Amino acid sequence: MTGTSPTRVTTLQDVAQLAGVSTATASKALSDRYDVRASTRQRVLEAADQLHFMPNTLARDLLRGNTHTIGIITSNLDGRFAPEVVRGAEEGAALEGSSVILYNSRGDRALESYYVGELLKRRVRGLLLVSDNPEDREPLARPIPIPVAYAYSGCSSPAQTSFVSDDVAPGRMAAEASIAAGRRRIAHITGPASQSPARNRARGVAEALAAAGLSLVGGTPMHGSWNEAWGWDATARLLDSGESVDAIVCGGDQIGHGARLQLERRSVNVPGTVGLIGFDNSLTLNRESRLPFSSVDMELVGIGRAAAQALAASSGEITSGRHLVPGTLVHPVHTL
Amino acid sequence: MTGTSPTRVTTLQDVAQLAGVSTATASKALSDRYDVRASTRQRVLEAADQLHFMPNTLARDLLRGNTHTIGIITSNLDGRFAPEVVRGAEEGAALEGSSVILYNSRGDRALESYYVGELLKRRVRGLLLVSDNPEDREPLARPIPIPVAYAYSGCSSPAQTSFVSDDVAPGRMAAEASIAAGRRRIAHITGPASQSPARNRARGVAEALAAAGLSLVGGTPMHGSWNEAWGWDATARLLDSGESVDAIVCGGDQIGHGARLQLERRSVNVPGTVGLIGFDNSLTLNRESRLPFSSVDMELVGIGRAAAQALAASSGEITSGRHLVPGTLVHPVHTL
Repeated sequence: MTGTSPTRVTTLQDVAQLAGVSTATASKALSDRYDVRASTRQRVLEAADQLHFMPNTLARDLLRGNTHTIGIITSNLDGRFAPEVVRGAEEGAALEGSSVILYNSRGDRALESYYVGELLKRRVRGLLLVSDNPEDREPLARPIPIPVAYAYSGCSSPAQTSFVSDDVAPGRMAAEASIAAGRRRIAHITGPASQSPARNRARGVAEALAAAGLSLVGGTPMHGSWNEAWGWDATARLLDSGESVDAIVCGGDQIGHGARLQLERRSVNVPGTVGLIGFDNSLTLNRESRLPFSSVDMELVGIGRAAAQALAASSGEITSGRHLVPGTLVHPVHTL
Repeated sequence: MTGTSPTRVTTLQDVAQLAGVSTATASKALSDRYDVRASTRQRVLEAADQLHFMPNTLARDLLRGNTHTIGIITSNLDGRFAPEVVRGAEEGAALEGSSVILYNSRGDRALESYYVGELLKRRVRGLLLVSDNPEDREPLARPIPIPVAYAYSGCSSPAQTSFVSDDVAPGRMAAEASIAAGRRRIAHITGPASQSPARNRARGVAEALAAAGLSLVGGTPMHGSWNEAWGWDATARLLDSGESVDAIVCGGDQIGHGARLQLERRSVNVPGTVGLIGFDNSLTLNRESRLPFSSVDMELVGIGRAAAQALAASSGEITSGRHLVPGTLVHPVHTL
């Protein structure tokens, strides 16, 4: 068709008419479950093909009680994290032969509740709630008669199912990689202590250092903001402190990018003098930047994939509890 | 329900049974179109409420021939651009009371074709093809009996409907803003001349300069890559050339970010000595960076929104042709 004159959707009646049979016969001919004369079936199949007829799979699936569809309600699509989780969820659903219906509630709980109703009406087989707020959220207020999973943000109710980042293990991973690279004077610049990813990554870093008989330069993590400006300022402060430092574990790539620029400005060689590692493995901030550094990928795509797969594959049941998805150490270049 | 013991979906039979009426009576009671004794209707409504019964809207919509759903097939969800277009498309559909089914073809034409079939089976009322390749794409090979639109990538067939960035107008916009800020010695560092966004933005810049009786510093745009490294290198080359320059229009924010860092390294004051403007209005690369600069937002969300709205609102027809969506000049800080 062209943009201006779409043909209407072909119905079974159209196929029957073209094949010169009754609608009932056409219907039987298109199903393998009925005996229909071979020549009749052939005529109907040719007519169906010629008219691009598609059996109404959705209606049939509805009758069978499975729409092969899961619903996703995301609290936003404009941050750096939620789109990654949604990308993984689409993948996970596809791996199970399911498709996704996507809604963006823009963080509005009333809208979220409305979309839950819309998805139930559309008979999705599972519901995935994605939020990139790193703290746990309240469960949905009303009972939901289909499996529900929470991704990225966990759920405060332990009876619910959630798929979240394991921040402790990646923290450990980043520090262990630095130690393995021969670093001993390791500092940690990260986000606000009020946020659990910052606290948990710091805990992982501390555990790895303790296991190696080391302690953090300055004694404590340098908590601040998740942005480039904090990475820049904290690195300046660290270098000005006079403490010897041979590695900086940065709690996020924006912080890492700021640290990298400050080190460059001070002509501190990376990784010759100071090793550098961040978290996120961000495409534009790190991998495509002029000065990429090692990073721990938090596997947000993996979180979405695991959650959607669990929902799409479930036969009405889903294992409750908190599923921790570990990160992966990546080396766009070795700056450890 | 808890995560481990979901109740099954309530059927009309369950409601009828609880209300102590026949299924036919329950069905009539739930519809305003039939006369049912008030007490009976009340009993059925209470049973439906108690069991969280939802009428099967989807099946009803199917019978009426409108699923209030549009299908989106995106060629990727991991770039910087496609997720923005998808975010807009979800918004556009929502504005028309429609929902979206999302598929990611990962740039695989066979998978795309398979998903087209899946979406037709699901009786979507329109189909949106999103690709963040800036060049036009081929139309779908087979005839599609519902409205189709292409977003971000246009379609090489003029009979098709596409919603794409107008790169010329934003180029003009960036140069005009620089001229309005008193700049006269304007350079243009941009992406490869082989790509139409680079060529078209450069054309817009040239038009604005010509209209003001000016010409580009160096005579021609500095074509290279879309990345930070090229912004950094080209700016160094520009400053080393000895040509006087008081503004740089950068073809993208990654280039702009590299230029900004080079200007900082050379202690060239922005905007005191050199004004700076990019394209994209990128969240992490520019708005949240330590040194944000002015930028032209290419309105990718607007492109997705317009395309999805056109599809969701269409009654089987959609105006063919190329819809150019203009950019918007934003000033996170004035660096012009």
